[in-house]
Amino acid sequence: MTQSRPSVSALSAPLVESLIADAQILRLGIERTATGATIVDAGINVRGGLEAGRRITEICLGGLGTARFVPDLRFPRWQTAIQITTADPVIACLGSQYAGWSLSEGDFFALGSGPARALWAKEELFGELGYKDAGGSAALVLETDKRPPDSLIAFIAKETGVAEDKLTLILTPTTSLAGSVQVVGRVLEVALHKAHAIHFPLDRIVDGVGVAPVAPPAADFLGGMGRTNDAVLYGGEITLYVEGPEDEAEQLANGLPSSTSRDHGRPFGEIFAGYNFDFYACDAGLFSPAVVTVTALSTGKSFSAGAFVPELVEKSFRG
Amino acid sequence: MTQSRPSVSALSAPLVESLIADAQILRLGIERTATGATIVDAGINVRGGLEAGRRITEICLGGLGTARFVPDLRFPRWQTAIQITTADPVIACLGSQYAGWSLSEGDFFALGSGPARALWAKEELFGELGYKDAGGSAALVLETDKRPPDSLIAFIAKETGVAEDKLTLILTPTTSLAGSVQVVGRVLEVALHKAHAIHFPLDRIVDGVGVAPVAPPAADFLGGMGRTNDAVLYGGEITLYVEGPEDEAEQLANGLPSSTSRDHGRPFGEIFAGYNFDFYACDAGLFSPAVVTVTALSTGKSFSAGAFVPELVEKSFRG
Amino acid sequence: MTQSRPSVSALSAPLVESLIADAQILRLGIERTATGATIVDAGINVRGGLEAGRRITEICLGGLGTARFVPDLRFPRWQTAIQITTADPVIACLGSQYAGWSLSEGDFFALGSGPARALWAKEELFGELGYKDAGGSAALVLETDKRPPDSLIAFIAKETGVAEDKLTLILTPTTSLAGSVQVVGRVLEVALHKAHAIHFPLDRIVDGVGVAPVAPPAADFLGGMGRTNDAVLYGGEITLYVEGPEDEAEQLANGLPSSTSRDHGRPFGEIFAGYNFDFYACDAGLFSPAVVTVTALSTGKSFSAGAFVPELVEKSFRG
Repeated sequence: MTQSRPSVSALSAPLVESLIADAQILRLGIERTATGATIVDAGINVRGGLEAGRRITEICLGGLGTARFVPDLRFPRWQTAIQITTADPVIACLGSQYAGWSLSEGDFFALGSGPARALWAKEELFGELGYKDAGGSAALVLETDKRPPDSLIAFIAKETGVAEDKLTLILTPTTSLAGSVQVVGRVLEVALHKAHAIHFPLDRIVDGVGVAPVAPPAADFLGGMGRTNDAVLYGGEITLYVEGPEDEAEQLANGLPSSTSRDHGRPFGEIFAGYNFDFYACDAGLFSPAVVTVTALSTGKSFSAGAFVPELVEKSFRG
Repeated sequence: MTQSRPSVSALSAPLVESLIADAQILRLGIERTATGATIVDAGINVRGGLEAGRRITEICLGGLGTARFVPDLRFPRWQTAIQITTADPVIACLGSQYAGWSLSEGDFFALGSGPARALWAKEELFGELGYKDAGGSAALVLETDKRPPDSLIAFIAKETGVAEDKLTLILTPTTSLAGSVQVVGRVLEVALHKAHAIHFPLDRIVDGVGVAPVAPPAADFLGGMGRTNDAVLYGGEITLYVEGPEDEAEQLANGLPSSTSRDHGRPFGEIFAGYNFDFYACDAGLFSPAVVTVTALSTGKSFSAGAFVPELVEKSFRG
Repeated sequence: MTQSRPSVSALSAPLVESLIADAQILRLGIERTATGATIVDAGINVRGGLEAGRRITEICLGGLGTARFVPDLRFPRWQTAIQITTADPVIACLGSQYAGWSLSEGDFFALGSGPARALWAKEELFGELGYKDAGGSAALVLETDKRPPDSLIAFIAKETGVAEDKLTLILTPTTSLAGSVQVVGRVLEVALHKAHAIHFPLDRIVDGVGVAPVAPPAADFLGGMGRTNDAVLYGGEITLYVEGPEDEAEQLANGLPSSTSRDHGRPFGEIFAGYNFDFYACDAGLFSPAVVTVTALSTGKSFSAGAFVPELVEKSFRG
């Protein structure tokens, strides 16, 4: 099974190379570490920008997807949304984009996402996907506003099986433009992740599209976390095309939207504070798009559920 | 005249090559026949997907046009539309994309579309276009869920004047995601075809844009045919920019929309059944977009006609 | 400072080359002058088209931006808008796209825009930008329906410091499709220019996005000037992300929209006639988008101002 799957590392390698080559244009910082690893600063000591975020999103999708800025009239004044399409949503979103690699050392902590995860492939999810990538280079996106320590960089290289000079780490603070784009660009991924959590068989998910409004960057980490989540929870929409029985497609549609969660209905920042900033205390079912449509390919029937909450998008984004 | 026109086969050849090269990513099946022809399965025994359909649409447009997924708020929950722009709409849509080559042998029947048509160029339309392409390779898109027989493949190669190992046949069942996309992607083409049918001189059509919602695949051929047509008839919009007298531009605008047809107002599947599934019994004037705007470049006046029928789009797509 | 900035001439050179290479497809006229300069006719004696205009817009943005056709539901029947994103809005829009080079000789007059301006760099604006480009080739877009005289071509080459055979002049009449697109594609640029005019420090502008409906070409120069301006003034929307104090971001938002101008509220053609066609008599504050949102990155607050005037867009575009 593994061999018939595309390599997210190989497919995204040219995107990583051109991100680095265009660093000046995209206003990114590039550091080569003493051991040869490349660190891309996408918004800590540099400006970065929306376009940098868009390209990092495509890297996160393992070269299997497209992230595009599109006009969005659903939320007046928040005119720009990001639309995600992929050639293979399960591998692109869960095999690569999902922020499933938890990395910490000393006081450094960050979630890692992107193609390098599939080289590591030690998350339980990869067993279920039946997917493990192999490749000569690795790229990992870290949601952080700090440079990771050298020892952690060495650890990542070792775990992904690449030489350090073949490793690229892309740092995207949640408060940066690039960081905001790449989180909101997870609108399809969170839907797939929740589909998995509610036990829909991933191998039945054939295709999907997602769109969510780009959240303006907040001034601090919690604000950024709040807005980017609100963009998806209250402003995101996805479509999935699935195989299997029609009634299971209907159950999937009904089970997916963020409105199924007990926590739905308040800005994420408020919810998070209510749980004393303990991410794992939040209802996992909250993390999904506002509106969902699932088409059962076996019968051609489609099921929609959920609703946008424009006033929460406005409240959250306005600041 | 012929020599001053772009070659749709030459322009689309790199797109065909990359479609084949990316077959694994796009989940396409590739067969090399004994005589060297390439058959691309875009949804019979494989999944294919939206992105495959988008790329096949651009091949159909002879490398002269762009097909892009765009968000569509006109029909709630059917969030994804396809937008067609071209550098030269008449050649792209009528000289290449139009499904004008009727191919049959034994119990195999399919309509052929795409750049190979202009190598063949035996349709009456090509005489009127004053266009015949020449080129070393040929690509034809077949709306079918069956592999064409070898003898028909040999016939197509012979008729297009290419060696069999330079021929690519792309098979897109109407019930597949790729098939749905590539039919809905004909929203601009059907408008040009109807303009021609109502005797508007094609050489006066300077430019155009079209958009229509992507129909979810249906479970059977008739369902797929119904939905993809409804997407255009009740949900499609086009703009044309034309030369010549203003009053003829106005007549064109008034004559184009699907609402001019006696059959307008019911789902296409119902209309088709009413004619005992005889395609040629349907009113040819039905096949055009819901909403049309024509700009007369000679005076700068624009004329709009037609209307969307959102409840028919919903009824048709929902299943 | 200059050295750390991207070269708009170098970045746009491949776009200029491919525009020329695709001249037949894009229906452009190409002339090589006796002294080796290249003149691209994008709508005087040839058709050109929307796609040509889109690509010329990206050349105007100095290879630092993207111009994309997107569907636009705000103004029914004017279904196509152009969306501008850039990697570096100040350099892309003011350092390259702004039509700041006034060129005249005898009865020839045209405003020059695009990357060659930054080679010349004699506008006061370049001093404030701290930007002067260097490069071996130059491209300038001229809003004109006449071929510039040879002596003016020689002058432009000399002033930009390139050999004449490295100079490309792209001619876009306001009444052509390409001309209409490339003017409306200035929706973000006019906002940056007005920000500068009302003394907002340009180095605080981090990123931006703009969108405006594509105006149908008018039959004469004044009509074209009217419509393309109306597209921006009454139908354009931009977002800016800025550094610095929140209250200055708020002032910027309130000061930017076209509605701040005494001339706002009538079609631009009417306003212009009211000033006896004296461009410089018009209120400079008029030239900006209808709707503006500014995000203060320092605090995460966003400020919106302005309003669309759909009835003026309709009146202006309809003809």
